[in-house]
Amino acid sequence: MKILLVGAGGVGDSIAKIAARRAFYEQIIVTDYDLARAERTVAWIAARHTPEIAAKFVADRIDASDPASVEEVARRHGADYVMNAVEPKFVQTIFAGALAADANYLDMAMSLSEPHATDPHSETGIKLGDDQFAQAADWEQKGTLALVGMGVEPGLSDVFARYAADHLFSEIDELGTRDGANLVVTDDDGNEIFAPSFSIWTTIEECLNPPVIWEKERGWFTTPPFSEPEVFDFPGGIGPVECVNVEHEEVLLMPRWVDAKRVTFKYGLGNEFIGILKTLHQLGLDKTAPLTVRSANGPVQVAPRDVVAAGLPDPATLGPRMTGKTCAGLWVTGTGIDGYPREVYLYHVADNEWTMAEYESQCVVWQTALNPVIALELLSLGVWGGSGVLGPEAFDALPFLELMALPVDEGGYGQAWGLEDRAV
Amino acid sequence: MKILLVGAGGVGDSIAKIAARRAFYEQIIVTDYDLARAERTVAWIAARHTPEIAAKFVADRIDASDPASVEEVARRHGADYVMNAVEPKFVQTIFAGALAADANYLDMAMSLSEPHATDPHSETGIKLGDDQFAQAADWEQKGTLALVGMGVEPGLSDVFARYAADHLFSEIDELGTRDGANLVVTDDDGNEIFAPSFSIWTTIEECLNPPVIWEKERGWFTTPPFSEPEVFDFPGGIGPVECVNVEHEEVLLMPRWVDAKRVTFKYGLGNEFIGILKTLHQLGLDKTAPLTVRSANGPVQVAPRDVVAAGLPDPATLGPRMTGKTCAGLWVTGTGIDGYPREVYLYHVADNEWTMAEYESQCVVWQTALNPVIALELLSLGVWGGSGVLGPEAFDALPFLELMALPVDEGGYGQAWGLEDRAV
Repeated sequence: MKILLVGAGGVGDSIAKIAARRAFYEQIIVTDYDLARAERTVAWIAARHTPEIAAKFVADRIDASDPASVEEVARRHGADYVMNAVEPKFVQTIFAGALAADANYLDMAMSLSEPHATDPHSETGIKLGDDQFAQAADWEQKGTLALVGMGVEPGLSDVFARYAADHLFSEIDELGTRDGANLVVTDDDGNEIFAPSFSIWTTIEECLNPPVIWEKERGWFTTPPFSEPEVFDFPGGIGPVECVNVEHEEVLLMPRWVDAKRVTFKYGLGNEFIGILKTLHQLGLDKTAPLTVRSANGPVQVAPRDVVAAGLPDPATLGPRMTGKTCAGLWVTGTGIDGYPREVYLYHVADNEWTMAEYESQCVVWQTALNPVIALELLSLGVWGGSGVLGPEAFDALPFLELMALPVDEGGYGQAWGLEDRAV
Repeated sequence: MKILLVGAGGVGDSIAKIAARRAFYEQIIVTDYDLARAERTVAWIAARHTPEIAAKFVADRIDASDPASVEEVARRHGADYVMNAVEPKFVQTIFAGALAADANYLDMAMSLSEPHATDPHSETGIKLGDDQFAQAADWEQKGTLALVGMGVEPGLSDVFARYAADHLFSEIDELGTRDGANLVVTDDDGNEIFAPSFSIWTTIEECLNPPVIWEKERGWFTTPPFSEPEVFDFPGGIGPVECVNVEHEEVLLMPRWVDAKRVTFKYGLGNEFIGILKTLHQLGLDKTAPLTVRSANGPVQVAPRDVVAAGLPDPATLGPRMTGKTCAGLWVTGTGIDGYPREVYLYHVADNEWTMAEYESQCVVWQTALNPVIALELLSLGVWGGSGVLGPEAFDALPFLELMALPVDEGGYGQAWGLEDRAV
């Protein structure tokens, strides 16, 4: 297996670092628009591993916005897997480049949505991943695989959905992804500061788009942003966090392969962050269309959302100033295999202190990166396999969850996941 | 009297329109960096007044950021008064240009403050107007007058302070300027939208700087932004509005001429607006230092506050989409001239419907513009006069308040002001 890793930002860098401790691949080509960034990741690995492992990593330059560049780099290195680790706005070009290169493909976010033109808060327009699923026949015809949404959320959450359906429930009422954290970022003086732990650009995109919900009777539909607030109690010492509906890939993926009455995604944004996002929207500062703004060099054209992002610290740099844990998981309700009502929360917690000590990676970024590496290993082993455009729930969940939880000294990733049975 | 009006934005335009109904001056030179804007104001007056009145208004171009430009335009037109009607960041350059031109000067906001370097939320640094008061001797020496802070707030509020001291109270405990409104702006579909009725640039400057308070024992000191929230009940049908301490000129002006134990300024921002300003600050979007931001033409340098302003509608254009009233006033507590405790609110209310119908001016802007015109008339009549750098409370308040309230057909401005005796 030769993996072309597209993007050496926070998540791409973590993917390379996690993979460096595994032996299942022949080569990883770490690429970025900014070659120096790719070289930094390769150098970090070289400084901490044997020359044999270091030799498996090479850095190269890529233009993720150009399918021809992706194809050219993939072909030149003979990559049979393209691992997309950049912002979702480049999904379509990397997806096209991988297909053109006859390579397999993985991503952690799907092609972007467009709201319904006249009724955005109740009807779907173009949905997340629609563009990718529309090309499924091309992948099937070539016999290559596009494994979409294979991060932590979507990704691990979808693996949990398949696991719940196969091993825990005879009938599922709701598959509800629930994400929450108690992360705190402080400045040099130890004062708490506002610094989102994930790309603010993507967070705004997710949170201000109309959230999508799936119901068996009704299919996909949307609601106004921040709908159906609920306080969800997260494990690992995180505790209760205010969660709201957010547009997310799980809702588009799970119903395609797992039988359930309702599929939702709620993000534990907390009241403060919800207020901030509402204000950004109210002031038009979420907009991606350029605005004419005065500057010392005369009027310039900038997108307000890019200004918001430029003013905040790069999430990948927050690790050393961050404390706390992040929890990704799936809350499932329905009828257990014993015929009784059941409610479980399947989850994985990442502690920033541990991810920083082990990988110099911030925990939200690291937790996202872990899952595609496990998936790639299962694909390299032939445990997982297929062709077309498939979500994580299209595959058997058990080998994934076993490899993930198996201690490192027994050949696994040593990442325990939890199952919490909740009172019904 | 020949008046050089610097700035034909919202307030400058209103000053010209209000003055056009009065006869006390020989000429008003309406100037702007954008000549077309000055010409638009002059054309509006010409279309609605006799040729004799129209002939008293001329348009010219000026660079308010350059004292030499201000001096040159003032001298060329033989202006004996320079009326500053632009953003406060140009106070110092216009002030210097007027002094150099041997002209008298009026403004409606004073030279900007700088927070204390180490203890900004309890000590003052450079205060509002410090730079102007430092030059008082230059004006006294020339025998010319700089009448500073002569809008509505500061301005009318300071006139009220002098009136209260001379005619209502034997001893004043607090001079508390209180400003509130019930203005609502709607979009084309009639939905309420967020659109500040005054320059957001200036509003951010005022509200996020540490508020300044004056106490007889302690002198000037500062607090954290949005301190001492109180609900103040405004007259004219506006009702109760949440007010907080805000840095404002009155606190720097009143103690210089009026005896009081405490001087404060509270702005009825309302909870929503306070939340928005806090969020802008938290995200660094209030900053005026340029940030490097990506754009279609490569990285550009823009100040986040300029981006916020560029994304909101121009307050001067809001009049037709606005309904409601704005109230400016001074709440005074202490001992009445009869020796009994007294509490009064002295105020002026402007109704947007009326200011739009009469002047095609939005009410907040119009109310600001009214007061310097009255002051100029009193100066032209010799009722007010002096030299040096003086605030409105340095002059007798009675002729101002009488001319303001006198009906139009009796030669006044027909603007009733109110005195509300409140229970002690």
